[in-house]
Amino acid sequence: MKLRLALIGFGNVAREFSRLLLSRREWLLKERGLGFKVVAIATRSHGSLMSEEGMNLERALKLREESGTVLEYGPESVDLSTMEIIKGCSADLMVELSTLDISSGRPATDHVRAALEAGMSVVTANKGPVAFAYDELSSLARSRGVHFRFEGTVMDGAPVFSLVERDLPGCEVTGIRGLLNTTTNLVLGEMARGASMEEALAEARRRGVTEEDPSMDIDGWDAAAKIAALANVLMGARTNPRMVDRTGIRGVSTGDALEAAERGMKHKLIASAERFGGFVRTRVRPELVGPDDPFWSVDGTSSAVTLKTDLMGELTMIERNPTLAQTAYAVFSDILLITDALRN
Amino acid sequence: MKLRLALIGFGNVAREFSRLLLSRREWLLKERGLGFKVVAIATRSHGSLMSEEGMNLERALKLREESGTVLEYGPESVDLSTMEIIKGCSADLMVELSTLDISSGRPATDHVRAALEAGMSVVTANKGPVAFAYDELSSLARSRGVHFRFEGTVMDGAPVFSLVERDLPGCEVTGIRGLLNTTTNLVLGEMARGASMEEALAEARRRGVTEEDPSMDIDGWDAAAKIAALANVLMGARTNPRMVDRTGIRGVSTGDALEAAERGMKHKLIASAERFGGFVRTRVRPELVGPDDPFWSVDGTSSAVTLKTDLMGELTMIERNPTLAQTAYAVFSDILLITDALRN
Repeated sequence: MKLRLALIGFGNVAREFSRLLLSRREWLLKERGLGFKVVAIATRSHGSLMSEEGMNLERALKLREESGTVLEYGPESVDLSTMEIIKGCSADLMVELSTLDISSGRPATDHVRAALEAGMSVVTANKGPVAFAYDELSSLARSRGVHFRFEGTVMDGAPVFSLVERDLPGCEVTGIRGLLNTTTNLVLGEMARGASMEEALAEARRRGVTEEDPSMDIDGWDAAAKIAALANVLMGARTNPRMVDRTGIRGVSTGDALEAAERGMKHKLIASAERFGGFVRTRVRPELVGPDDPFWSVDGTSSAVTLKTDLMGELTMIERNPTLAQTAYAVFSDILLITDALRN
Repeated sequence: MKLRLALIGFGNVAREFSRLLLSRREWLLKERGLGFKVVAIATRSHGSLMSEEGMNLERALKLREESGTVLEYGPESVDLSTMEIIKGCSADLMVELSTLDISSGRPATDHVRAALEAGMSVVTANKGPVAFAYDELSSLARSRGVHFRFEGTVMDGAPVFSLVERDLPGCEVTGIRGLLNTTTNLVLGEMARGASMEEALAEARRRGVTEEDPSMDIDGWDAAAKIAALANVLMGARTNPRMVDRTGIRGVSTGDALEAAERGMKHKLIASAERFGGFVRTRVRPELVGPDDPFWSVDGTSSAVTLKTDLMGELTMIERNPTLAQTAYAVFSDILLITDALRN
């Protein structure tokens, strides 16, 4: 089996994924009988490439990292929009890792839709499509007989979607509680040690974890997108980030954080989803947790989710200090699960 | 698809599983196109049944619960040994839930071997076969083209084996750390509140969590069997409970536990496995953990495992206060995964 890949976006995650893919080339062939070629790389402002024969991914990586663009790659360099590339390339599988506008889920959602319509399977680490349009996109994938996977969207590589889909057959998720946003977790931790929110944000920036616009984190948008994605996929909710009852952490002062610490408590930005009559109520808000809470020890850039289920009780998954490598692995593992499914 | 089941053992877990199976009969047919009949029930001292046409499972359950045996069921009642029943029945799948001798893994291992040799798939919640003979039994299953699953053996129903096998393709487990024994966790918790070990054990007995012989728990045998099972399956170790470097909790006094509590620490019986040169070193011993440890909040009858991996970093799974229902679900979900695989 030879997989034809299109990479949409060639930023940090896409390049980390490319390096992982290259480092596993022999393993993929030997253990999985799987070869691959990259037939398209599309970026908004760093050049785009398209080639039926496949690109030299090492060279494209090197070029992008040394000169900032892939424009100089050769005749494969094309002056086409991302949508034109998706529609024009001959990929079996699109890896969608473009930059996300979290308030709309676009353009990632458009990319995913176009690829599925063109009969490609899709893997994305972008929250947008799942948070805004899971129902539509998963139906579309089913109707085209292709696959849509997105493990990297919520907890980097921790397989929370796969866990429920693949390991808990016949089991219903009745509630979700998550500690899903890194920046606010770091910021609240710094504030509990006396830092102001500005100082704490500066520290988060220094560690490279804050998104360009910190308000996406501070105001709870990132957590809202993640709980919307989880609720849509795992609980059949039809929600989106704008429908989440959302309170960020601006209301928590350094004084509040210090006082909580004195009482042996911590503020955490908790995202949750629970069934409420016929619908699923989703919420993001700061809460106080004590040492007996499984989220107590989830500090720094770690994240956690608790699933309440009908048959399996309550399961918590904690991912410790993930890096880009874990998001890259999520994409890699989604591709393997799709190729396994395509073979059956 | 109509599945022919043999139940080996008809104790608490087997009966809980039977109730779950009966409650999901319609769902199985409707959602999975799966019917089932129970063609054998074998027990050591509560009677055994065998019938090509299948038993009325409700009636067998009722009889066992009201009169203690199934001897009076009817002409299906047979005077055969469990091994004779395994070899003589016409099941496609054996559910092995007999009583375990943890120091030898028998007779469960013999039951599993005989069933696999007879061409049946096997699901068990017994640690013994996986802790003592995983390598042999999994090879045997492969060579016969049947399946061997055991999710209920280590963490009740929490899908730790499935997680690695099914959701982390291409990812290697490099280390394991587990809080896997309920009794010692309860006992150490009571001792930290001033109880003697005897008082704490009495409390554990009152809550119905201590195995018949508390030394299996107190001396670390149960934890050793569980870490051996995890290391064998997830790290390719070829170990068994007797090879685990094992220290139980008898060396922890109430004074030690109280002193630890004063310093803001807790004793936990930690099981671990790590690669050490060419082999896997497994160990069980009491350790002190602080509030920043993900195991800190894992009290009462909860359990937890942390997997260290090459590509996915560190993942912790916590199962909160599981009951028999979760072990029954593990058996149920293993059966569904096997029937899915048989269909492909």
